[in-house]
Amino acid sequence: MHWAVILAGGSGTRFWPLSTPDRPKQLLPLAGAHSTAEDALLRLSGLVPPERILIVTSAQLADPLARRLPLPRENFLAEPQPRSTGPALAWAATEIASRDPEAVLLSLHADWHVPDPAAFARVAARALAVAEAGEYLVTVGIVPTRPDPGFGYIEPGEAIAGLGARRVAGFTEKPAPARAAALIAAGALWNSGLFAWQARTMLHELHRHTPEIAEHLGALVRDGVEPFFSAVESVAIDNGLLERSDRVAVVPGDFTWDDIGTWEALSRVRPVDADGNVVVGPVTALDSSDNVVWSEDLPVVVCGVSDLVIVSANGRILVMHRSKAGELKRVLDQLPEQVRAL
Amino acid sequence: MHWAVILAGGSGTRFWPLSTPDRPKQLLPLAGAHSTAEDALLRLSGLVPPERILIVTSAQLADPLARRLPLPRENFLAEPQPRSTGPALAWAATEIASRDPEAVLLSLHADWHVPDPAAFARVAARALAVAEAGEYLVTVGIVPTRPDPGFGYIEPGEAIAGLGARRVAGFTEKPAPARAAALIAAGALWNSGLFAWQARTMLHELHRHTPEIAEHLGALVRDGVEPFFSAVESVAIDNGLLERSDRVAVVPGDFTWDDIGTWEALSRVRPVDADGNVVVGPVTALDSSDNVVWSEDLPVVVCGVSDLVIVSANGRILVMHRSKAGELKRVLDQLPEQVRAL
Repeated sequence: MHWAVILAGGSGTRFWPLSTPDRPKQLLPLAGAHSTAEDALLRLSGLVPPERILIVTSAQLADPLARRLPLPRENFLAEPQPRSTGPALAWAATEIASRDPEAVLLSLHADWHVPDPAAFARVAARALAVAEAGEYLVTVGIVPTRPDPGFGYIEPGEAIAGLGARRVAGFTEKPAPARAAALIAAGALWNSGLFAWQARTMLHELHRHTPEIAEHLGALVRDGVEPFFSAVESVAIDNGLLERSDRVAVVPGDFTWDDIGTWEALSRVRPVDADGNVVVGPVTALDSSDNVVWSEDLPVVVCGVSDLVIVSANGRILVMHRSKAGELKRVLDQLPEQVRAL
Repeated sequence: MHWAVILAGGSGTRFWPLSTPDRPKQLLPLAGAHSTAEDALLRLSGLVPPERILIVTSAQLADPLARRLPLPRENFLAEPQPRSTGPALAWAATEIASRDPEAVLLSLHADWHVPDPAAFARVAARALAVAEAGEYLVTVGIVPTRPDPGFGYIEPGEAIAGLGARRVAGFTEKPAPARAAALIAAGALWNSGLFAWQARTMLHELHRHTPEIAEHLGALVRDGVEPFFSAVESVAIDNGLLERSDRVAVVPGDFTWDDIGTWEALSRVRPVDADGNVVVGPVTALDSSDNVVWSEDLPVVVCGVSDLVIVSANGRILVMHRSKAGELKRVLDQLPEQVRAL
């Protein structure tokens, strides 16, 4: 049967001061009326029923997510500590295999913006079909729309006969913009983090290529989650498994996709006004361009400014140049605790 | 006897959203621990006793000012409507002359920044002495420190024998920066609005040169303030009287003086940090320079921004390029009433 795993971790720092421990970014309506986590569930409807959707998240976020998302409580897997995507997906595959040894699963993230769910569903169904037909670790490579240096890139290799997919010739993580442009010209695709594989294929490949995870999987089954997470090291699924395995395939994804990773990203996923501003809440913008302004409740007036991120939420005000949006975590580290804490 | 008139009008728009109808800018601690109006009173101590200090203000501001300033209630003159400085000073001279026909008065504004009150007192005493000795309308011309296009300039003329003052050869209101620099090179001084004259000299000169005010002074004495203000037109003392009279003198003022007319001015009168920021309240500034950030209560974090005015007060947030600070009134005119009103 088809299953899905939604990764919903994170420390909630990238959308400070709007995100709080009790209302992490996945539960914020960043891109529109629904939260990104709700959108992720809606995106799966028709592909996977709710009882077969698992959410892997942090111990802190599990309860807030469970209160707001209509999934069985036992489908929320709370990591005792963050160990990146490798251990998270290994745990999910183990859990799913224990419920359904024949399972084929789709792996996605809770903070994506995908405006066309039907196009997503077509590609996801195809990735699941490739995973089902062959023992492949299937990646979905998004057709790039800009040489974004913040993403990973997948270089497609030779065609896999009869499956409508290709092998992967190589991965490049966060290239410089010029290198990204060259990769795109050569046909590379964005590594979205949308994957499909049989649970047992994934576990099998882990045992072949990723001893740093695989050697602890016995403890996971035998002793439970706590010993597994305290023993395993942080390792991303990309360089921990996908870059090592020779069973990796790529299916092209021609739907619009973005990850909503910073305040700056809202200008790509939200409607912009004629001057390039994204405004949410009681905001008046005059003689101003290319700003992202979000106010929960207090009226905000901006005048004569450009390229700013301005946020008023939870009793805090942030005014940041948009070029700094990716450094917000570093900024927060410099704040007094009583200012930072929400 | 010596008297003083403090002009404290204004609609309170230049320091939105900090200034409110109940707490106009003159009552805000814009430059330091005291409000500018309190500083104006402190500046007069030793020169004029409180019972001989009058404050001319708007009907709306009279009560808030009277509640906070230690002057007799009858010394607050509330204008029924704003008519600029000409009618205000004509009313003040009439009122003072009725209490003391020999009065010599000093006229000043409530929103000045004068860090050295002793230097101010020396110059003010000299201006009063010149006004007392001769029937002159005495202006104090501040020695300029920059070619500010926002001020008026006084060109000194021939010396007045025995009085240590000069006649005024001309006034130039708000020249372009290049013209301002040329005026300064030729010895021009800033027209601060600090004046001294005998009440009867001022009224006499009004009757000679300013019929648009003088013809209503009979009604002021006979019928009261309301008919006077509804009949008289708006006219500034500068072009309504000082530019017309041949009895105008100038005394140089070599003390540091500024008017606190916009948020931007705070960077001249408040301490700045090593990066040129003025911060007041719970503000954290990182990688930021030349900003004015004022927060009444909410923590504000600024990062990677320059040349902004950022204000959080009275449930409103303003983020404005500092070059727009002088246009704040125009900005407010474009706001929905429920946002603007405080």
